[in-house]
Amino acid sequence: MIRFAHSGIKNTTIFSIKNIINKNSSRYIKTTSCLLNLNDSHNFFNQNENLRQKNQTSKYLIGALGALGIGYFFSKNIAICEVDEKNDKKTSVEFGAVKEGLPFYTEDQVKQHNKTETGIWVSYKNGVYDITDFVEGHPGGNKIMWGAGHGLEPFWEKFPIHFKSEVFELLEEYRIGNLKKDETNKKPIEPKPDFYKDEPKRNPQLKVLTQKPFNAESPKEISAENLVTPLEFHFIRNHMPVPHIDTKTFKLEILNVSNGEKIEFSLDDLENKFNSVTIPVTLQCSGNKRKFMNELGQVQGLMWDVNAISTALWTGVLLKDLLIHCGIDLNDPKIKHVIFEGLDKDPAGVVYAASVPIEKVRSDNGDVLLAYKMNGQDIPLDNGYPLRIVVPGVIGARSVKWVGKIILSDVESQSFWQLNDYKVLSPSIKNLKEADFSKLKAVQESPIQSAICQPVDGNIIKRENGKFIAKGYAFSGGGNEIESVLVSIDNGQNWKNATLKKFDRPLYRSWAWTLWEAEFDIPEGKDQIEIVCTASDSNQNTQPESAKSIWNARGLLNNSWHRVKVNIQ
Amino acid sequence: MIRFAHSGIKNTTIFSIKNIINKNSSRYIKTTSCLLNLNDSHNFFNQNENLRQKNQTSKYLIGALGALGIGYFFSKNIAICEVDEKNDKKTSVEFGAVKEGLPFYTEDQVKQHNKTETGIWVSYKNGVYDITDFVEGHPGGNKIMWGAGHGLEPFWEKFPIHFKSEVFELLEEYRIGNLKKDETNKKPIEPKPDFYKDEPKRNPQLKVLTQKPFNAESPKEISAENLVTPLEFHFIRNHMPVPHIDTKTFKLEILNVSNGEKIEFSLDDLENKFNSVTIPVTLQCSGNKRKFMNELGQVQGLMWDVNAISTALWTGVLLKDLLIHCGIDLNDPKIKHVIFEGLDKDPAGVVYAASVPIEKVRSDNGDVLLAYKMNGQDIPLDNGYPLRIVVPGVIGARSVKWVGKIILSDVESQSFWQLNDYKVLSPSIKNLKEADFSKLKAVQESPIQSAICQPVDGNIIKRENGKFIAKGYAFSGGGNEIESVLVSIDNGQNWKNATLKKFDRPLYRSWAWTLWEAEFDIPEGKDQIEIVCTASDSNQNTQPESAKSIWNARGLLNNSWHRVKVNIQ
Repeated sequence: MIRFAHSGIKNTTIFSIKNIINKNSSRYIKTTSCLLNLNDSHNFFNQNENLRQKNQTSKYLIGALGALGIGYFFSKNIAICEVDEKNDKKTSVEFGAVKEGLPFYTEDQVKQHNKTETGIWVSYKNGVYDITDFVEGHPGGNKIMWGAGHGLEPFWEKFPIHFKSEVFELLEEYRIGNLKKDETNKKPIEPKPDFYKDEPKRNPQLKVLTQKPFNAESPKEISAENLVTPLEFHFIRNHMPVPHIDTKTFKLEILNVSNGEKIEFSLDDLENKFNSVTIPVTLQCSGNKRKFMNELGQVQGLMWDVNAISTALWTGVLLKDLLIHCGIDLNDPKIKHVIFEGLDKDPAGVVYAASVPIEKVRSDNGDVLLAYKMNGQDIPLDNGYPLRIVVPGVIGARSVKWVGKIILSDVESQSFWQLNDYKVLSPSIKNLKEADFSKLKAVQESPIQSAICQPVDGNIIKRENGKFIAKGYAFSGGGNEIESVLVSIDNGQNWKNATLKKFDRPLYRSWAWTLWEAEFDIPEGKDQIEIVCTASDSNQNTQPESAKSIWNARGLLNNSWHRVKVNIQ
Repeated sequence: MIRFAHSGIKNTTIFSIKNIINKNSSRYIKTTSCLLNLNDSHNFFNQNENLRQKNQTSKYLIGALGALGIGYFFSKNIAICEVDEKNDKKTSVEFGAVKEGLPFYTEDQVKQHNKTETGIWVSYKNGVYDITDFVEGHPGGNKIMWGAGHGLEPFWEKFPIHFKSEVFELLEEYRIGNLKKDETNKKPIEPKPDFYKDEPKRNPQLKVLTQKPFNAESPKEISAENLVTPLEFHFIRNHMPVPHIDTKTFKLEILNVSNGEKIEFSLDDLENKFNSVTIPVTLQCSGNKRKFMNELGQVQGLMWDVNAISTALWTGVLLKDLLIHCGIDLNDPKIKHVIFEGLDKDPAGVVYAASVPIEKVRSDNGDVLLAYKMNGQDIPLDNGYPLRIVVPGVIGARSVKWVGKIILSDVESQSFWQLNDYKVLSPSIKNLKEADFSKLKAVQESPIQSAICQPVDGNIIKRENGKFIAKGYAFSGGGNEIESVLVSIDNGQNWKNATLKKFDRPLYRSWAWTLWEAEFDIPEGKDQIEIVCTASDSNQNTQPESAKSIWNARGLLNNSWHRVKVNIQ
């Protein structure tokens, strides 16, 4: 695998990528990060050098650079790298480049196409696009019209969510021509601020997927051994730069849309005026294990391995208690959803937000928490300091970090992430642009899951030891307890019941993962073993053997059996 | 398939079965009914005639006899019929018959082996068995010692649960010899009453698996079309004869073991002194779809097809309300389980009983009901008249019919069905005698499930119609709502999202099935199509493709994909 790391260094392009992607090949590895430290909007794809190093070489190089804190990054580059493992070839694509054979249009001609009647055109780098048919389907609503007749670059810098390969691919489908640039009208480009300049220091042992925003997995060996993940090893899933909040002036705002009432609490209020509870909760990104789903067909999102999941002891106030204290009637029929707004925002001021149904908050078995401590300490900056929501049993996306506002509402959050992102599409939808997100429910509870954390793929096991131990985790959303983990080294012909280690929790409120281990005799006459695991829970649910029938274009909730190959020597 | 029907007629053996079972063949069809109208304990297997009719012939014969209300039954017979479909051969086994080559022991010799020191022997028909090693593992505890040194016949008549092929097979494994009968000591056998003489009249369209006790499926076409199953088509799962209860003198007894308090309610109290609620609830036998699991390896239990499941509108008192009305503290730490005792009993006076954890009863999302109406009418005799428990989202075995007593207890029900029956064994346990039930939890909530009800296996679809419609149900336990049903006619290469029809229910309290349908174009160039369906729910759980990894020796909870083959003409 190739890992892309990014540092804060500007104007340095170590790799950039060209050539055309071959969509029919077996495996893709993508970078989908949003890169905001962009100085030259006309030089989106530098072409200094092709990424032609061997996998192994890149890994070592990146490791070395990472260790020096230097790393490398793509200056405004979005790349799809296709890795043909057998032939060790890499190809890549450049979006917005001149396409031979298409007509050229001037900037003035593009400008004249800025409403439905004339057709709606936009440009991006050297490309001209007629997006008239797309406008209604734009996930961000009619903000898209801000760009009508213009170059997309300044708008996309404000909404960096667009900087992902899927968006570029979609855009190219509306390509009608090339842009004939009028150099006389060129204005000097102003340098943009680096929105990520104040990011916290991170544990270098985390497995980084993107630096900006920061997304990183917990190391496998940590998950294998720790029922409670040490703070500095908890996985991190950020959508924006990390906000820095002044805890002295901070006020949590609670807004009841039902009657317009607004109530505020200081951190001191929350920590000292209410009973505190401590609950072991496993948070899991709904994209955990996405990279394996991607092997069956290209999906969109960060290519998480099996450790976008961690467990902490969360301490805070039960949201239900707080709301009842506020005199809010949780059975008020006008209150249907509880919206959480973070204080993290993108350059355009859009804050991260999500919501959960009121039933989850008011349930005796809900345990939705306003957390101010994690493993007994202040919550680290990356995990939501000073205050975050923890929604147990539900995908991580609803546990809003750096929470600043709670809204009791008759509609769910209208954020992109609630309405158009974390929803499971039918396997028949092969491309996001075919999707009608409005017909789908936002994902809340997550299904049963398990993974092998030790050994890892490619590990060598010594035959002379006679035996080896496999270890991992199992977890089920919705408060369901793990009842068994089956492990096999002969593709499920024979299953061994793993030994389980878990928290003793009340029925329906089992919010944390279970660790498991199973010992095997090393079979004679084999130089490679594939280990596979699958779990069942108190609701008697089990995992699908393959991700084929659960494949979805967003690559969410891959809970198919996890397999690891090890070599015997 | 061969269906065995039983009537109340005594001393008439139409078929009996001999020959030795071939365990390696592909399919078994078993009768596992308890036969209580036994007149001759020494003539357990009559050998009048071999069951050599063709499948088709037997079916017609049984149908005809059933229609005349005559039927046929095995006088004290338990048979395993193995059907080799290709060769249309049937073989059978006779347990307890003389085995050539084994030594003969007298009844006196058996009697001397009645304690651990001497070894514990028993006889059964012509067999002598040394069960010393089995005594500790006996599911019924040390009651087994009542039979030490004796013939098992009189004890098993008291505990007819033993009359199933698995028990006979197990017993034969302890065989040490043949019994040399002392005819001079023979006492005349007294005729036994027919415990099933007062069974209610049933709808002849139900698909009967056993008559005594009565177990029958709902017809597929009824499930396909009715969100609420009409009363007379609801599936029936009885463990004992149907009790006849005098509603005028009936009192429901509630016993709080925590403080010894006992409270009684008449039916009139329950119907008139408490708020009534009506909830659509699907009840499903945990053995539903067992026959498909049995195809992968022999399992124990009734060979249900896909319709041991039905839905009714249940009206009654919420048990939680009733208990709170009684002043019972549902958070009392001494109350951990709620035991339900039925008024149905076996000839030895053992009543059917089961329990659920107190958390299910006290939860706001529990909805455990003391039901006295079904679809707005009196509950039919077979479904629990006059009062039954309905535990939504949980396997049918806990919804105790004809409930007479509710016990608030610190331990779960000690009944056979709670402790040693409805538990999911590991797939590595191939035989029930290897099972340690004490280490497993009693199954409560059931997993996500779906099935095709129209067309049915072997149906003919006319090519000239161009299209056909598949219909069925999907259901998930634990209050989870069905979110999608995928249907495929090319083994999951392409999936179609079925149209869903369901009750509008609050979150976490979706207790009834969802009906679905999907229309397909009849593909060119094929004369057979296999239809397959799979569902997903609000907890994002899905069904396993194959029953292989969920196979268990009791054949419980087979929720693997359902497949139906139809012919195109």
